[in-house]
Amino acid sequence: MSDGGGFGFEIGRRDPDSRARTGRLTTPHGSIETPNFIFCGTKAAIKGVTPGQMREAGTGIILANTYHLMIQPGAERIAKLGGLHAFMGWDGPMLTDSGGFQIFSMGHGGVADEIKGRRNRDAAANGKAARPPALTRITEEGAEFRSYLDGSKLFLTPESSIEIQRKLGADLIVQLDECTPFHVERDYTARSMAMSHRWGDRSLAEFARGDDGAQALYGVIQGGVYPDLRRESTEYTAGRPFFGTAVGGSLGAHKDQMYEVVSYCAPHIHPDRPVHLLGIGGFADIFAGVRLGIDTFDCVHPTRVARHGWALMKGAGNERINLRNTRFRDDAGPIDESCGCATCATYSRAYLNHLVRAGEVLSATLLSIHNVATMNRLMAEVRAAIGSCTLDAAEKEWLAV
Amino acid sequence: MSDGGGFGFEIGRRDPDSRARTGRLTTPHGSIETPNFIFCGTKAAIKGVTPGQMREAGTGIILANTYHLMIQPGAERIAKLGGLHAFMGWDGPMLTDSGGFQIFSMGHGGVADEIKGRRNRDAAANGKAARPPALTRITEEGAEFRSYLDGSKLFLTPESSIEIQRKLGADLIVQLDECTPFHVERDYTARSMAMSHRWGDRSLAEFARGDDGAQALYGVIQGGVYPDLRRESTEYTAGRPFFGTAVGGSLGAHKDQMYEVVSYCAPHIHPDRPVHLLGIGGFADIFAGVRLGIDTFDCVHPTRVARHGWALMKGAGNERINLRNTRFRDDAGPIDESCGCATCATYSRAYLNHLVRAGEVLSATLLSIHNVATMNRLMAEVRAAIGSCTLDAAEKEWLAV
Repeated sequence: MSDGGGFGFEIGRRDPDSRARTGRLTTPHGSIETPNFIFCGTKAAIKGVTPGQMREAGTGIILANTYHLMIQPGAERIAKLGGLHAFMGWDGPMLTDSGGFQIFSMGHGGVADEIKGRRNRDAAANGKAARPPALTRITEEGAEFRSYLDGSKLFLTPESSIEIQRKLGADLIVQLDECTPFHVERDYTARSMAMSHRWGDRSLAEFARGDDGAQALYGVIQGGVYPDLRRESTEYTAGRPFFGTAVGGSLGAHKDQMYEVVSYCAPHIHPDRPVHLLGIGGFADIFAGVRLGIDTFDCVHPTRVARHGWALMKGAGNERINLRNTRFRDDAGPIDESCGCATCATYSRAYLNHLVRAGEVLSATLLSIHNVATMNRLMAEVRAAIGSCTLDAAEKEWLAV
Repeated sequence: MSDGGGFGFEIGRRDPDSRARTGRLTTPHGSIETPNFIFCGTKAAIKGVTPGQMREAGTGIILANTYHLMIQPGAERIAKLGGLHAFMGWDGPMLTDSGGFQIFSMGHGGVADEIKGRRNRDAAANGKAARPPALTRITEEGAEFRSYLDGSKLFLTPESSIEIQRKLGADLIVQLDECTPFHVERDYTARSMAMSHRWGDRSLAEFARGDDGAQALYGVIQGGVYPDLRRESTEYTAGRPFFGTAVGGSLGAHKDQMYEVVSYCAPHIHPDRPVHLLGIGGFADIFAGVRLGIDTFDCVHPTRVARHGWALMKGAGNERINLRNTRFRDDAGPIDESCGCATCATYSRAYLNHLVRAGEVLSATLLSIHNVATMNRLMAEVRAAIGSCTLDAAEKEWLAV
């Protein structure tokens, strides 16, 4: 399937036992093999890692966040400086989100927690959507919120989100949706979903007005934890001319419910389009998502945990080890003998233990490089496993189960 | 001149109008051209910059601090892990200091300020050497001080400093000396200097006992701001079998006095040995030092100012510009058109302005890379200028005077 302007998505091999598939997602800035992982460069920078180091670690695609960049340094400024790719020195495929997720979760934390399946007891208890302090008003027109920098009021609409993302210039962009918190009333979720669909239509119209083939638009599936709403929302996105499909919103109270929610959507997603799962990044989640037909994932997890001394590790049981741990003090071996990233090629666990304990910022860089390389290796091994029908074996190796 | 074990120092060109000279300093881990700059990797890491990035920025030699490393992770541990080079992934020439400077200045700040010519009014007013809180006792045997980590009492002697530096395994090591603060009484300075000389002899004896050709020892010139003491101390070092000469201790109350103090030493320094000036790194200071016969410099300046948003810049007047400044917000040009470092090759001032304002740690990395490259370029141009007798012209270009 081609969507003009150098965009395309070709499906390769299919797993006979699940919806897992390999593919190739093409953009004007190059192609990535799928399933793949999109690393978060929130403010147009991967924290502590240069684009060159990201490439060396095997990275194909990154994202930046519209919410942060529209406030600082501003989309207009980035456009004048040649767009995100030129601005941040990344010449590969790139995605921006709509800005909605941060607006609906900022200063609250609830939505992010809920997507990961961590229950927000207060919100769940009263069955209402708690409003994050940053968000001041939602209307049919859009969302009013406060700037994280100076508290000034800002307004984001489906049209302005497309316009801002056009200025930012990522290859893949996403429609604005209301990201409903977990377990709000069914009625609220249904009304919110219907509005998100109307926002989707407005996004498509605005996108079509300025479409020059340089970008491709993802629609977002909402519907909370309700099977019929998820199906309705999925059919909405499949029936509209979006390039890709993103599974968004609250994915449930715990991991199992997250998989369940995605499984409500999976059979109804447009089969020829790339599917993105927003904000998910654990090894186990990746395997579960891939089996449900997800092609791309994103999460701050790999670089965030690196800043706290954690190294992701294949077969480590808990998916990771903490280099601050005293048992690594005299360990002359690399984080992972089987890794081969720039960090594992040069540095011992003992050195990383020292850097973490000494508070050296280089520890975040070196651990981020390893974690990025590990996620890219995970995705490469997942793709290979789909090709050879050995997903179960790959999962056992990675999760040490 | 060769000092065994792959060490050597060959003098090349000489400036007819000053003591400036070019040379080649050889160690078992390779050679550097002099004059050159030694970058500070205090805790066995250049802050925010990998060894690969240091190399790419033209770096030939780095140092680490004995005081920090003896406390954490410990010299014994580093020795077991193969020494500093293997531990931190740097395969070029390396220097460690004796540990004395930090002991005598830690928790006080006075000595570091004084070396840079910033007057410590209190110490000057009472004419006594104020004791930093970390330092609990100085005796003929050595210095007792408290660990910066847990407050436990530690004792450093000339012999133990050599032993620790042997375990750390840098190519160039330095004798323990008492780093006397600026403008203490002449009597105190004279007695302290005499003790430092005895410590020098003990260092040489300890060094000789374990010498396997893998390291070379620098003696340190003390003597405060007193011309006759500086001469005496310089003659002491010249008369002993040190490989190199370091000009240490208080260099005066202000920049001009610093140059004056170095000029007391210069005529009496052993002419065939490499000369290091401790803790000096401004462009103007480098030119002044080079003219006085200094071959190597070290300073935390290039990477420290980077962490505060400053880019060193040839011809910038004040030697640097601050990327946080609003005037760079829309500036699509690189920090320095004439630079060519990895940062200037890829990133605009506008992007760096954004990173600094956004508090992204990547700004420190990118600015450090530029500052390191700029110092290395300065030193390369200084060497070329000595070769072509154009030091004055080079200085005018760099200082924009």
